[in-house]
Amino acid sequence: HISIILLLNITKIVSFAELFLHLTYSQFLCQNKYMSKKLTSRTEDYSKWYNELVVKADLAENSAVRGCMVIKPYGYAIWEKMQAELDRMFKETGHQNAYFPLFVPKSLFEAEEKNAEGFAKECAIVTHYRLQNDPDKPGKLRVDPEAKLEEELIVRPTSEAIIWSTFRGWIQSYRDLPLLINQWANVVRWEMRTRLFLRTSEFLWQEGHTAHETKAEAVEEAKLMNNVYATFVENFMAIPVIQGVKTESERFAGAEETYCIEALMQDGKALQAGTSHFLGQNFAKAFDVKFANKEGNQDYVWATSWGVSTRLVGALIMTHSDDNGLVLPPSLAPNQVVIVPIYKSEEDFDAISKIANNISENLKAKGVSVKYDNRTTFRPGAKFAQHELQGVPLRIAIGPKDMENGTVEIARRDTLTKEIVSLENLTSTIQVLLKDMQKDLFDKALNFRESHITEVDNFEEFKTILDSKGGFISAHWDGTNETEAKIKELTKATIRCIPLEVRQEEGKCVYSGKPSKNRVLFAKAY
Amino acid sequence: HISIILLLNITKIVSFAELFLHLTYSQFLCQNKYMSKKLTSRTEDYSKWYNELVVKADLAENSAVRGCMVIKPYGYAIWEKMQAELDRMFKETGHQNAYFPLFVPKSLFEAEEKNAEGFAKECAIVTHYRLQNDPDKPGKLRVDPEAKLEEELIVRPTSEAIIWSTFRGWIQSYRDLPLLINQWANVVRWEMRTRLFLRTSEFLWQEGHTAHETKAEAVEEAKLMNNVYATFVENFMAIPVIQGVKTESERFAGAEETYCIEALMQDGKALQAGTSHFLGQNFAKAFDVKFANKEGNQDYVWATSWGVSTRLVGALIMTHSDDNGLVLPPSLAPNQVVIVPIYKSEEDFDAISKIANNISENLKAKGVSVKYDNRTTFRPGAKFAQHELQGVPLRIAIGPKDMENGTVEIARRDTLTKEIVSLENLTSTIQVLLKDMQKDLFDKALNFRESHITEVDNFEEFKTILDSKGGFISAHWDGTNETEAKIKELTKATIRCIPLEVRQEEGKCVYSGKPSKNRVLFAKAY
Repeated sequence: HISIILLLNITKIVSFAELFLHLTYSQFLCQNKYMSKKLTSRTEDYSKWYNELVVKADLAENSAVRGCMVIKPYGYAIWEKMQAELDRMFKETGHQNAYFPLFVPKSLFEAEEKNAEGFAKECAIVTHYRLQNDPDKPGKLRVDPEAKLEEELIVRPTSEAIIWSTFRGWIQSYRDLPLLINQWANVVRWEMRTRLFLRTSEFLWQEGHTAHETKAEAVEEAKLMNNVYATFVENFMAIPVIQGVKTESERFAGAEETYCIEALMQDGKALQAGTSHFLGQNFAKAFDVKFANKEGNQDYVWATSWGVSTRLVGALIMTHSDDNGLVLPPSLAPNQVVIVPIYKSEEDFDAISKIANNISENLKAKGVSVKYDNRTTFRPGAKFAQHELQGVPLRIAIGPKDMENGTVEIARRDTLTKEIVSLENLTSTIQVLLKDMQKDLFDKALNFRESHITEVDNFEEFKTILDSKGGFISAHWDGTNETEAKIKELTKATIRCIPLEVRQEEGKCVYSGKPSKNRVLFAKAY
Repeated sequence: HISIILLLNITKIVSFAELFLHLTYSQFLCQNKYMSKKLTSRTEDYSKWYNELVVKADLAENSAVRGCMVIKPYGYAIWEKMQAELDRMFKETGHQNAYFPLFVPKSLFEAEEKNAEGFAKECAIVTHYRLQNDPDKPGKLRVDPEAKLEEELIVRPTSEAIIWSTFRGWIQSYRDLPLLINQWANVVRWEMRTRLFLRTSEFLWQEGHTAHETKAEAVEEAKLMNNVYATFVENFMAIPVIQGVKTESERFAGAEETYCIEALMQDGKALQAGTSHFLGQNFAKAFDVKFANKEGNQDYVWATSWGVSTRLVGALIMTHSDDNGLVLPPSLAPNQVVIVPIYKSEEDFDAISKIANNISENLKAKGVSVKYDNRTTFRPGAKFAQHELQGVPLRIAIGPKDMENGTVEIARRDTLTKEIVSLENLTSTIQVLLKDMQKDLFDKALNFRESHITEVDNFEEFKTILDSKGGFISAHWDGTNETEAKIKELTKATIRCIPLEVRQEEGKCVYSGKPSKNRVLFAKAY
């Protein structure tokens, strides 16, 4: 570990790669789109910075369909990495995947309605099943007025209704329980104001739906899955989260308790990164799902549901990235290492390629994903710009001087530091760097979060802190919907959660002055 | 290999497991749903056999939404295995995954329309974006008449239109080519008559969409991906296929050539298992996708698209399964081996569990997926019935006698043979059996297929063979749409493909008597 720290101190030495770049920059300025223009800085306009980064780093873009995004290959590769790890964790905790229909008949929503009066009804509704040539406009199409559905179909905004109407057929006795199902799917909620990854009309997610014999078991499951989310987001995405429960007004409609993980973005706004709901017997009653228990009596089952979505990609970007572009924790990077050759002659290129391929093989053997960027259609400067913008954790440059000295130049994306290191033990050097980087990113985000939780005891200070420093405000609340709504109306801050690890502390509500038993976390949120 | 054959000869010995079962059958008849009733036999009613099997083996079921299925965990696990292998093959051939919107604005279909006049227009159409409480019917919901979309959205039946309207922004120069994209997605086609897996209104699939500099390169890609499909279906699913091209009338609308793989089901009907289209410059022209070539001139790109779907699960079932239920090739089995303990006392159970866990560990270390079915809520007979119905390739039973002798009983699902084998070298015995089974299933299906390709030279024989023996009919065809349509009208047989490995042979059209240069394959098809 000490050797790494020593290595980091050599970063001031200007390498051959760097020199070469300076000399030839003018020749290939604007050689590709990644070099075309700097990003807007975060301090200048955080929201604009975010949107530019998403598009320029090739993560996603808006589509021809209002509110729906195209997830580009690089963004999708990150989502695939997240999926693979989550899926592994779900299976390890006994869950099985299944697939339920995209459409939900309107009547199923009515069955659920008494549980879900607060449920948003902005959704995509299928009313017809045939297009035909427009008799009045040659070359145009119209909806065939004859092909109207008897019952409208809703594109699933979430699948409780269709899944619980199915579970009824799957559950007869306690021997069919627990039923632990997960689905990877697309869902649609007709959002008026959308932002890439953070809020889109269509998004990709997973939704877990489970059924249990007892209340205690269902509550345990809801907590377990919230904990799985926390573990995944912290260890894999390097994003610290606070686990808590939602207040009644922020709860999922139909839930008796909503557990959540809340993260803090660099602009001081909170982001709900995942939720896990204890649904009581509400859906079992709405869809009449009973089972014969061990005593032979009929009883309603107890339920949970839980989900995370492509929104997590937004959280990832807003937690770690900088004014130069994306910063990826090594666990999530499609390529953890990229190797760029710096050469003038074909002879040099061949010699460097031999070394690069050798490095690649050694790294791959150790499970490190690596790409040798040997494209001849782009110059090194364009490649450097692209890999920086796309957040490749480690960039290795190899030039003629490196070949002479048996070295390479390693640039670390998070710290932007460079170092010349020996080819000897390069694989383990890189493994250590990747491990350090994963930890450093988490620690950095944790420090930021910790320094942005402010305990506040009066409402003036509440407003001041919210508008100046931002972040989480830890304050007493009297427990009423009215106060919560009033604070939201006056400040746009909502109660993000009542932390699970809350310390009991008598106090007075920051708004009403009424007695309170513990602090809750307020913030403006995405 | 010889030792295995010897082992298979011992299968006549009635094992302890079998004895135990006979003695206690009456005690737990109908103990679970898998034991409740025999399947309808294939000879009695092939179609009914198929439907019963799909439902009873827990693969899928019909849903509350007309024409849409629920893919149950066991069926989904098979699909996941298929996905994983296909995805690996796509990436190995240089493709990247991405995700495009579920909805396609109607106007994009109009842009494509001139290329796609034959395209089925039975699709799900979103016209509204809000549900509201029905003012006239308390507790009921209605579509908000105010919330009508300006332009209707079509739920994608396939994604050429939305993807090509996106590709326009991604392709500027030859350096952006080839663009090799794949998408895993759900699609919807409003089917009037549906069957689980084989034809459902919503289905899961992958669709590849690629863009190339030259015609030759695009043709090469279309052939390559058809070959990837053939390799996957033959090696992984153990289903022999014939590669060929479609006739003009059977081609995908907008394609200049459609490559396909055709399989033969046990009832003598063909099933199109995958298609790969060379699209020429049709979509590039419809969506104005040009690139600067190496000479600096603007040119339209050349395109392909290719796809396989959950329909393959239907092909899998109909190729290998028997009157006892599903038969799975080991490559696709969620559990390749299941171990069932046969015990009367808790002491026996503990001793057997020790052996079973030991066997499991050894198998897992060699990459064999194994499940120790230690459920205490079901008796061995119920477990045997379930695993047979669900097609687990190898079932190991361990009873007290086996413990005395240091043996286990292995039952092979495809041949229904049983053998007592020694615990010594059990892992390698099983590995050989699994390998043999994968090969034997393919060979059996290949023999069936080869014996069901009949060369026919007159139309009377054509009709006789089609109605009696079924299968592929290899016959001369004059190359006209008229003859093809007439034969279809008279016999319901279609030209499945013109095989790639066709031998040039002068002859006369089986219907019109006009000259023909080669035979094509006719069949009734799913």
